Amino acid sequence: MAAAAADVLGDRLSGGVMVIKRDTTQDVGAKLPHPGSYHILAAGHPVPDERSVAGARRIADLLSDSREGDLVIALISGGGSALLSLPAPGLSLADIQALTGQLLACGASIDEINTIRKHLDIIKGGGLARMAHPADLVTLVLSDVVGSPLDVIASGPTVPDPSSFADALAVLDRHGLPDRAPPAIVDRLRRGAAGERAETPGPSDPCFARASTLLVGGNPQAAEAAERAARAAGLSALILTTYLQGEAREAGRFLGAIGRELASAGRPLPRPACVIVGGETTVTLRGDGRGGRNQELALAAVGELAGLPDVALITLATDGGDGPTDAAGAVVTGETLSRARALGLDPAASLARNDAYPFFTALGDLLRPGPTDTNVNDLAFLFAW
Amino acid sequence: MAAAAADVLGDRLSGGVMVIKRDTTQDVGAKLPHPGSYHILAAGHPVPDERSVAGARRIADLLSDSREGDLVIALISGGGSALLSLPAPGLSLADIQALTGQLLACGASIDEINTIRKHLDIIKGGGLARMAHPADLVTLVLSDVVGSPLDVIASGPTVPDPSSFADALAVLDRHGLPDRAPPAIVDRLRRGAAGERAETPGPSDPCFARASTLLVGGNPQAAEAAERAARAAGLSALILTTYLQGEAREAGRFLGAIGRELASAGRPLPRPACVIVGGETTVTLRGDGRGGRNQELALAAVGELAGLPDVALITLATDGGDGPTDAAGAVVTGETLSRARALGLDPAASLARNDAYPFFTALGDLLRPGPTDTNVNDLAFLFAW
Repeated sequence: MAAAAADVLGDRLSGGVMVIKRDTTQDVGAKLPHPGSYHILAAGHPVPDERSVAGARRIADLLSDSREGDLVIALISGGGSALLSLPAPGLSLADIQALTGQLLACGASIDEINTIRKHLDIIKGGGLARMAHPADLVTLVLSDVVGSPLDVIASGPTVPDPSSFADALAVLDRHGLPDRAPPAIVDRLRRGAAGERAETPGPSDPCFARASTLLVGGNPQAAEAAERAARAAGLSALILTTYLQGEAREAGRFLGAIGRELASAGRPLPRPACVIVGGETTVTLRGDGRGGRNQELALAAVGELAGLPDVALITLATDGGDGPTDAAGAVVTGETLSRARALGLDPAASLARNDAYPFFTALGDLLRPGPTDTNVNDLAFLFAW
Repeated sequence: MAAAAADVLGDRLSGGVMVIKRDTTQDVGAKLPHPGSYHILAAGHPVPDERSVAGARRIADLLSDSREGDLVIALISGGGSALLSLPAPGLSLADIQALTGQLLACGASIDEINTIRKHLDIIKGGGLARMAHPADLVTLVLSDVVGSPLDVIASGPTVPDPSSFADALAVLDRHGLPDRAPPAIVDRLRRGAAGERAETPGPSDPCFARASTLLVGGNPQAAEAAERAARAAGLSALILTTYLQGEAREAGRFLGAIGRELASAGRPLPRPACVIVGGETTVTLRGDGRGGRNQELALAAVGELAGLPDVALITLATDGGDGPTDAAGAVVTGETLSRARALGLDPAASLARNDAYPFFTALGDLLRPGPTDTNVNDLAFLFAW
């Protein structure tokens, strides 16, 4: 996105800041037509770090002298909630890091996590739009959130925030966190819910008077590209949904049940077939194993698909990184169970420990494409041939 | 099934015994063309009672003088495992009742429960075929088990048993029951696993030499009939799977995600559309509310479908009884959430208590067709118009 913008803008680009994931910095810099046009900073993900704060400060500095007639272009993609952080007065980065870890571990949805983040951080929830005011502001968004709600992607730094301090506090309550979350955070949310803190800017805030936002890509576009590729390869193809959410292991059983139908009845599509599902599931941690949501989803389908001929399930994170692993996802076929047993592996026991990564490593069935530098959530493909 | 058989056989029917659920006896009797052709007994379900033993004895008596050239027709449908029981020597009905209750409460699968039942009961796991020997035996099966494994439906009284005493003991172990199950049962399974008891008959047992089995109906046939009806009504229709299992609330979210795709992108089918899913989900109890798996599945989809125009999810148990309620299932639309809130109802809170029945009762959105006298598992329909 940054390279394309620099290409179009040429020397009309007076300055820019890119804050990206730590391990992609050099590659991205090399892709820019005018490498000097942006300050490039790497920052932490999925938990924000001190570089996330430095990046947000750099952006705030750049925007501090914006005036009417200037054009600010915000290029937003997945991960922005962690990559940019300006803790609200009275909060420390350590507080926000601790809470982010707790929210990720308890299975909170990204919508819930970002509702809280927007009320702890002054660059999120329309905060960047306030900084850019009174310049013209155009935001181009690549979505990594199911359904592409613009206020949730990267915690909506340039769009109105429909959520309130009371909503954020309700998320903490729902996950039983008020006793465990950092006290300064609980205090801020409680005071905010009591009306003692200013809310994030809503739709009628003047900072949005000259702001416009365009969704340039997301999971549906990726699923549609996959559908075209499958059809071009001679398969019948069908997108079931691009809104999949919920517990990864249960989604895996549902897809396994569709695999059994494909194998036994040639439904919902005639063979050779490719059923495509997009979205992003979550994993509620029960054990201390290694893995990610796409690998766990695949592992949960092993039993359902066991023994079926000519069927495969392939799962992947489109950014190439599934959870805290170097794999994007995994491949399961009707033979996975018997191959695993021959190696002394028990998929049910691995699933109970959230330990999909060693399971698929032993089988040689992980997908490892490396980082793709773009995140449009996850895709799963059920093949029958 | 009994009425149809009596109709076809006429006065060639020399005798019959029907053992059915307590609350359906009179209705079923009235449907018979020749009411006197069967002894009709009502028995307990899902936990067997003394009438289950009386019914099994009556069948054993009927078959005690069967000889070569006789034709025995077994009509098997869901619930047979509880409705017929002949405890093995040394075991009491009370032992079997206690164990059945323990297995149902700990979330054991029907496959696991029936593996144990077959090793405690002399009419199950091929036992009825032994009684009918040397007559010709034809079994007609109406399946209430996902995937229709003939040895699991009604605990396979007329088919070979692929499971062993060791398998049955392993089920007890898996659910931590050896210390809690009735001692006579644990003792029998241990002796059996040690080779001190004769196994249930396997495929080469002579009692199956003149036996044949026909699956006459099940969930796929019901789903296909629904698909035909939807197409006849001018809808595009698609069966996704007839193998759905897993946690009801997660299946509800998955179907809700497909509803969002139907509403936003006209996928996987063009409108007006009907997506059909069959199988049988389970509910892991977390609260003390009232409901059933089909009502819980519907309740879990309320949030996903909220606000969508012209979309509905309808769930039902084909026997008309969802869990311990008088409803078969429920109806959810895009307006369910706002209608519920207007009544002060919170679907998330109801779901947390497994309390779908009062929720849908208040909305007037339960399905209450009454008993259908046939069980081919569950169906869910997602409509978009």
